[in-house]
Amino acid sequence: MEYPSKLIEDAVNEVSKLPGIGKKTALRLVLHLVKENENRTRALTEALNKLRANIRFCKTCFTISDEAECVICGSHRRDRSTVCVVEESNDVMAIENTAQYNGVYHVLGGVISPMNGIGPSELKIEHLLQRIAQTKNEIKEVILALSPTLEGDTTAFYINRKLKALPIKVTSIARGVPVGGNLEYTDEITLGRSITGRVVFD
Amino acid sequence: MEYPSKLIEDAVNEVSKLPGIGKKTALRLVLHLVKENENRTRALTEALNKLRANIRFCKTCFTISDEAECVICGSHRRDRSTVCVVEESNDVMAIENTAQYNGVYHVLGGVISPMNGIGPSELKIEHLLQRIAQTKNEIKEVILALSPTLEGDTTAFYINRKLKALPIKVTSIARGVPVGGNLEYTDEITLGRSITGRVVFD
Repeated sequence: MEYPSKLIEDAVNEVSKLPGIGKKTALRLVLHLVKENENRTRALTEALNKLRANIRFCKTCFTISDEAECVICGSHRRDRSTVCVVEESNDVMAIENTAQYNGVYHVLGGVISPMNGIGPSELKIEHLLQRIAQTKNEIKEVILALSPTLEGDTTAFYINRKLKALPIKVTSIARGVPVGGNLEYTDEITLGRSITGRVVFD
Repeated sequence: MEYPSKLIEDAVNEVSKLPGIGKKTALRLVLHLVKENENRTRALTEALNKLRANIRFCKTCFTISDEAECVICGSHRRDRSTVCVVEESNDVMAIENTAQYNGVYHVLGGVISPMNGIGPSELKIEHLLQRIAQTKNEIKEVILALSPTLEGDTTAFYINRKLKALPIKVTSIARGVPVGGNLEYTDEITLGRSITGRVVFD
C-alpha cells in the first residue's frame, strides 16, 4: 500500500509490528489518533513509555509488579504452601480473576520450545527449585497450570521429573470439556481426555 | 479485571481507548511490549508522537500530507478536471491502490450525521464549492465516492443539490454485486440495486 505521508507510513509500520495487528488495522488505529486530540496520543505514548521504563518483576514469583515484591507474594492472607506454576503474568491475572485460588504463583516466562530456541535454562525453572529449597518444607504442592499444547506438556513433564525426588505433591489443572461447552462441538482430543480423566460423580 | 501493576493498568486503559481494541487485546499488546526490547516501545511511541505533532492536511484536497500540498494535488500527471469526493484520507489510499483513477480528490472529513451532531458546516463541503469556483471551468466532473449508508447517501444528495446549478457532471461510484461475490449470498438491497442499476452488456 502507498501512503500519502511518510509519517503515516512510519507509524503504521511500528503499530503493525504488534501481535495480531496487520497493516490495515494499524492504518485504522493511526488515522484514529490523527483525528483525535493530540493529548490522546500523548497520554497513550506516555503510558507505554512509563510502563516499559519502570516495569519490574517480583523477585519471588517473577510476575509483573510495581514493587520488588508483588502484591500476592507480599500478602499475609495467601497460602504459601501451594505454588501455581504458569507461563506468563497474564495467566496469573486470569487465575486471580476466577477468585478460586488462594495460593502463590511462579511465572516461568514461557515454555520449553526447541523450535524457538527456548530450553529449560531460558525459563525460571531453576529459580523454582531454589525457591522450594530455600523455603525448606513450606511448599507442599506445586500446581502445573500450563497450556495444553505440546510445549506446555513437555514443560510440565520436565518440571514434574525435577520435583519427583522432593516430598511435594505435583498436580495439574483439570483438562476436559469447558463449562457451557457442547459435547458435539468439542474436539476429539479434549473429549478423549475428559473420558480417560473422568472423575467420581458427587 | 485486576492488574498486578498500576503501570500495566494505565497502559491497558490508554490502549483500549483505540477503536476495536478491548481490554483483553490491550493487555496482550501491552504484555508483548513488556517482553520485547525497550527500543521497540520507544520506536513505536516516537513514531506516533512525531505523526501527531507534524501531520498536516493538503490545503487543496484536505487529505493527510507531509507538505502543505499533497503528492496527488502537486502532481502534473493527474487530471484536474475530475474530483473524487471521499469521506476520509484512507478512502483516498484505497482508491489509489486500485490504480484505476487518475483524477484528484476532495476529502470531506466525514459525512452528514445529525445523530452525531455533524452537519454540512462541519465538513469540507463549502471548501469544495469554493474550490470549484476558484478553478473556474477546470472541474468538469465530481465523482461522489461515499459509503452506501444512510449518512453517505444523505451527504451525496446534499452535495448533488449544491452542484446542480453548475455546469458540472455529478456521478457516483457504481453500486452492485462485488466482483467474486455470489448472488446467493448478496444481501437483497445490494442485489435489488444491482438490478435497477443494470448496465448495457458489452
